[in-house]
Amino acid sequence: MSFTKLDDLGRKLEALEHAQSMLSVDEAVQMPSGGGNKRAEAMSMLAGMYHEMASAPQIAEWIADARNEDLNGMQKTAVNEFERSYINLTCLSSDFVRRQVSARVRSEQLWRELRPSGNWKEFLPAFEGIVNLAREEAQLRAQVLKLAPYDALIEQFDPGSRIADITPVFIELKTFLKDFIPQAIDVQTERRAKNPAKPFNASFPIEKQKALGEALMKAIGFDFTHGRLDVSHHPFCGGVSSDVRMTTRYTTSEFLSSLMGILHETGHGLYEQGLPKEWAHWPVGKARGMAAHESQSLFVEKQLARNPSFWEWAMPLVREHLGETAIAGWSLEDIIAHVHRIERGLIRVDADEATYPLHVILRYEIEQQLIAGNLGAKDMPEIWDAKMKEYLGLSTIDNPKDGPMQDVHWPSGAFGYFPSYTLGAMMAAQQWAAVERENPTVQNDLRNGNFSGINGWRRKNIWSRASTLSTPDLMREATGETLQARYFTAHLQKRYLG
Amino acid sequence: MSFTKLDDLGRKLEALEHAQSMLSVDEAVQMPSGGGNKRAEAMSMLAGMYHEMASAPQIAEWIADARNEDLNGMQKTAVNEFERSYINLTCLSSDFVRRQVSARVRSEQLWRELRPSGNWKEFLPAFEGIVNLAREEAQLRAQVLKLAPYDALIEQFDPGSRIADITPVFIELKTFLKDFIPQAIDVQTERRAKNPAKPFNASFPIEKQKALGEALMKAIGFDFTHGRLDVSHHPFCGGVSSDVRMTTRYTTSEFLSSLMGILHETGHGLYEQGLPKEWAHWPVGKARGMAAHESQSLFVEKQLARNPSFWEWAMPLVREHLGETAIAGWSLEDIIAHVHRIERGLIRVDADEATYPLHVILRYEIEQQLIAGNLGAKDMPEIWDAKMKEYLGLSTIDNPKDGPMQDVHWPSGAFGYFPSYTLGAMMAAQQWAAVERENPTVQNDLRNGNFSGINGWRRKNIWSRASTLSTPDLMREATGETLQARYFTAHLQKRYLG
Repeated sequence: MSFTKLDDLGRKLEALEHAQSMLSVDEAVQMPSGGGNKRAEAMSMLAGMYHEMASAPQIAEWIADARNEDLNGMQKTAVNEFERSYINLTCLSSDFVRRQVSARVRSEQLWRELRPSGNWKEFLPAFEGIVNLAREEAQLRAQVLKLAPYDALIEQFDPGSRIADITPVFIELKTFLKDFIPQAIDVQTERRAKNPAKPFNASFPIEKQKALGEALMKAIGFDFTHGRLDVSHHPFCGGVSSDVRMTTRYTTSEFLSSLMGILHETGHGLYEQGLPKEWAHWPVGKARGMAAHESQSLFVEKQLARNPSFWEWAMPLVREHLGETAIAGWSLEDIIAHVHRIERGLIRVDADEATYPLHVILRYEIEQQLIAGNLGAKDMPEIWDAKMKEYLGLSTIDNPKDGPMQDVHWPSGAFGYFPSYTLGAMMAAQQWAAVERENPTVQNDLRNGNFSGINGWRRKNIWSRASTLSTPDLMREATGETLQARYFTAHLQKRYLG
Repeated sequence: MSFTKLDDLGRKLEALEHAQSMLSVDEAVQMPSGGGNKRAEAMSMLAGMYHEMASAPQIAEWIADARNEDLNGMQKTAVNEFERSYINLTCLSSDFVRRQVSARVRSEQLWRELRPSGNWKEFLPAFEGIVNLAREEAQLRAQVLKLAPYDALIEQFDPGSRIADITPVFIELKTFLKDFIPQAIDVQTERRAKNPAKPFNASFPIEKQKALGEALMKAIGFDFTHGRLDVSHHPFCGGVSSDVRMTTRYTTSEFLSSLMGILHETGHGLYEQGLPKEWAHWPVGKARGMAAHESQSLFVEKQLARNPSFWEWAMPLVREHLGETAIAGWSLEDIIAHVHRIERGLIRVDADEATYPLHVILRYEIEQQLIAGNLGAKDMPEIWDAKMKEYLGLSTIDNPKDGPMQDVHWPSGAFGYFPSYTLGAMMAAQQWAAVERENPTVQNDLRNGNFSGINGWRRKNIWSRASTLSTPDLMREATGETLQARYFTAHLQKRYLG
């Protein structure tokens, strides 16, 4: 049976993915520096084996034959998703992939070297190559997928999301933020004038922060028999769904940045742990894509863990784990002053939830022009500066390091990825609104640290559905409508102006 | 070029070995319990891929063709060792291997279940199946390798070692120990009567023990940029030669068991770190086998780290890391009383260096009879008891749990493995004698914690030679003669009667 052949292949691919994921985790968490060369060799070999196995021509036949077999509904969906994944993997020729990989590696290395000094001029030739390859890639994908070129790029990261759906939502959001941000900053300034934010006056030992983080993770539903929390330079959520490896990094001068990072990654971790185990070795059993994944981490971080009700429950836990002197004399408002802060800045990864979407929309707009050929690589510093001025009132014209050179995505050739961050943030707000609609007393659940109802909703509507639906369909099924900007804008208004 | 094909294949196999090794380490050190099922699945899939790739029929042609290519001496040796390894891997039919794997898995599970209660009767049918398969395996291997059946089993673990060489050495050793052990115990009893061993009177925090262990590892030559020390239930030395993962386990009631374990594993680790990097992806670049590996761990643990000169250097380090109160008032003799102790016991893994060989020789003698068919599985309790009485004056007839059921080796089908432990111990003594001959002031090196000369000898004579020579040839080249019992017996006499 061809379905069985796909199932067997899935198990082999799963084993290679398992090895690659865990070796990546080990590299970030455990590996001594001298192990790096052999690890890189091993990873590249395993990736080669995976690609060879996953792109074998006979898979197309198995998929075609499986359609004629006696399959139930879920099996049919699984075959469809296998095909989607197979086509996305095989729509580029090996020759093109080789050229692209080699250009990306060189460009990323060059970027790491030149970013600290912001040497855009020396970086430009490599980046021009990357842009040309991205245009070529978009064309190749578009032909096979029968999509617009930029849609074909997005499809890799966020299946089913299209410019036609994203753009109106982004426009509504951008228009809203234009007025909202100055208003919110005014309100914040006023409040700060009356109640200045309390500084962190204690030292926070790492072991205690770790115990606090793990206590919150556990309460929120993270299953420590199928995962763990470690330390790495760049926090991530990795591993496999049966063994989710989360990391954070600590500073002893304050505890909130690590804790909020842990809560963010816990959102990713819960998604992975909630995926249907019986389909773990099929594409249909994987998480739905970057936007859906980000919606799960931002749901926990922004919707739950920056909610004042959450802190009514969490403050005693902070005191229990970090000691009574840790936030001695702090009121709920004092914590909230730290977790709700809006500030215009140049750097996307440092941005708060209100200004972040503008960083993303800026990239989304530029990427479309870049892929369409209306803008060239050389135009980036000017267009970036113009948009930053327009959206956030900041200039980057003399500072490419914190302008178009700030992220690794472009140097490594990832175009179409950025929208996922803000789509995820909006999806999270819309999901939270749906939870509140279905359970009007959910704020009380937060105050009591009771996450079972919230997780029950997410398990039923998001986690267990894995990749059975496209992102827009997943949202429609879960919340009754496709992605809307208004839940996110209402959330910001309530939180920052309410 | 066929040599290049073997080289390319070696790199692929190395990547799979890398993944398997590191996943094993992670399983023992980091993995949460719930990750076990998927990990086992992944490991079994990777092992299947490895076996398929490593036993492909065309490899035989590549090896044959490579011999006609213009190769230098080392390349020729590498092809020969590739062939040896390939033949050992492929001399059993896949059908036989499948039957054997399934029987072994069942028998090992049954053993884990029945060992605690010592239920030999229920274990026997499974064990009879294992013995029959081992006999069949020995015949199959013997035919292909043109060796005696038991020699063909040993060849898997200790290439080149033969019954004809081992038996006379073991007989000499057994004869010696018969008189030596009672004598040594008498001497020990006398000494203890005068100077009772001091008990451990402090608590030893794990972090401090770890720092002490790492300080000694580093001084002895372990490269922490290519390795690390962690904690696991069963201590081991794993990983890959570019990234050696060692583990130990700690108790806070004393520090010596963990420390001696660390020093033992450091011996394994130094061997791995000292292997020639450029051949890491060829069989010829791997460690020579179990006996050679054990010689390296026992060299460090028994020859260096139980030597009184070593403790002259190490005692101040113990005080530095564990605090002045740790072994307050202890003299060198007080430490030595703990690291030199002879005691007859039932359990091999708990045995000291003097009684350990008798545990091994007992198994060696029984295994030969078992494989030859002169003894059956059902005869084990009686023959074990008879030999234990003869060699150590202890009976196991009513205690199969601590008799033939004590080790995992037989339940998992590993026959021919046990001799390596004692061969390794004797090789270590013979190597140390060679070092002393070449460097008469080496005891001073120990007193000064200077291991560079000692490691220089080992690097030149053992580590850098990897698998270019058979075990007996490696010993002959390194020490000027094949394995002799007299270095080990002289070592015991000097240490316990001197």
